[in-house]
Amino acid sequence: MGDADTTLQQLKDRMDRFVKERDWEQFHSPKNLSMSIAIEAAELMEHFQWLTVEQSKQLSPDELSEIGEELADIVIYSLSLSNVLGLDLSQTIVDKMAKNIRKYPRDKVRGKAHKYTYYQRQDESGS
Amino acid sequence: MGDADTTLQQLKDRMDRFVKERDWEQFHSPKNLSMSIAIEAAELMEHFQWLTVEQSKQLSPDELSEIGEELADIVIYSLSLSNVLGLDLSQTIVDKMAKNIRKYPRDKVRGKAHKYTYYQRQDESGS
Amino acid sequence: MGDADTTLQQLKDRMDRFVKERDWEQFHSPKNLSMSIAIEAAELMEHFQWLTVEQSKQLSPDELSEIGEELADIVIYSLSLSNVLGLDLSQTIVDKMAKNIRKYPRDKVRGKAHKYTYYQRQDESGS
Amino acid sequence: MGDADTTLQQLKDRMDRFVKERDWEQFHSPKNLSMSIAIEAAELMEHFQWLTVEQSKQLSPDELSEIGEELADIVIYSLSLSNVLGLDLSQTIVDKMAKNIRKYPRDKVRGKAHKYTYYQRQDESGS
Repeated sequence: MGDADTTLQQLKDRMDRFVKERDWEQFHSPKNLSMSIAIEAAELMEHFQWLTVEQSKQLSPDELSEIGEELADIVIYSLSLSNVLGLDLSQTIVDKMAKNIRKYPRDKVRGKAHKYTYYQRQDESGS
Repeated sequence: MGDADTTLQQLKDRMDRFVKERDWEQFHSPKNLSMSIAIEAAELMEHFQWLTVEQSKQLSPDELSEIGEELADIVIYSLSLSNVLGLDLSQTIVDKMAKNIRKYPRDKVRGKAHKYTYYQRQDESGS
Repeated sequence: MGDADTTLQQLKDRMDRFVKERDWEQFHSPKNLSMSIAIEAAELMEHFQWLTVEQSKQLSPDELSEIGEELADIVIYSLSLSNVLGLDLSQTIVDKMAKNIRKYPRDKVRGKAHKYTYYQRQDESGS
Repeated sequence: MGDADTTLQQLKDRMDRFVKERDWEQFHSPKNLSMSIAIEAAELMEHFQWLTVEQSKQLSPDELSEIGEELADIVIYSLSLSNVLGLDLSQTIVDKMAKNIRKYPRDKVRGKAHKYTYYQRQDESGS
């Protein structure tokens, strides 16, 4: 089993079973799940809190393994929220990516990380 | 295209292309991406901030569509971080779920949402 | 010592001393401190993650004490960031509150928690 | 008015009045306020998301002003949560700082930013 042959539905089904077997649907409301995702995101950040941007690129195998677990938790709760909301996550992601492609045209943003509002302002001022 | 026939690798490849076409690898360090995920998680939470848990289960189609976009952003950055770290995300998720299954045995936690530390303390005190 | 007779400067000075005595100025960059605040905010949220809004109003003394510590950490890092940025925090807060008073006029928002953008749209549509 | 002569109680009172005049006590539950703090913390982070640690030390006056507003929002919600919980924030902060002073003894941690668990492990292994 790996990314090349695992569909999102397979992971969503696993998570659905996990939650139902524990009668945890009552806790997995959209509001609570949004908090869970944010909490796990903070646990991921904790690993990088005091590192420079460069240091964060040179992780030991142990760190990488712990970081992988935090990242997994984020996606696990995201899958659960998709289940609860009845969302097709792949379609939602592909649509959002298409929107981002329009929002950040290659030729305009290459090598720059300014925020979208910056580009918008540039446009309005006619440049 | 939908969850039933989209693999994680297909989504990872799309994101990889998006980043490379914009020369954004320089910004997509693990440290920065962990911040991005947390920022998007907060934008998702913003939709639920003033709702009760119950209200968060009754979303209008418009709200659902905006919420889907925020959730997509979280997973998009998670895919990018998997790319950067060279992680097989499915395998990491399946491993973490197996760990959670051991950590929260069905018969013990059914219908309860106490934190793991609570169950641990119970065990240590012999109950 | 208590809120009635403790100034923000006194707390800022304590934090400044704590950081300097440990040679931690090098880690307390604005970027890192913004992550620290977000991480502590998530630790605070963790206490409320599975509670209903109502349950979060009925905390035991033990929970209250743990929650107080998380809240303290958030403000401690905020004081440190004020120090690093050379900000007068009281003035910044008073200015921001004045802005919020204009943004959310009493008569318009009483008892409602809609987001600001909602009120703005109402205005633009002439209602 | 400035940090040298503003007490925490003065700021707490201002915030208390702001909330009561809008009948917003019903929304300012501990659970919701913990989300608000986390959301504002993410808005603060957004300013530093793509900067290096070094760049985050060289902010323009405009950036500094926007960052100040985000930091103010974090502390404003923290004051509101103190009000709701009936907490003396100064005392809680001073107590937490005393705990941190014991947890991170100067001679042991000077110039290092390892996490607390690291120091604990060192102790247990007898070093």
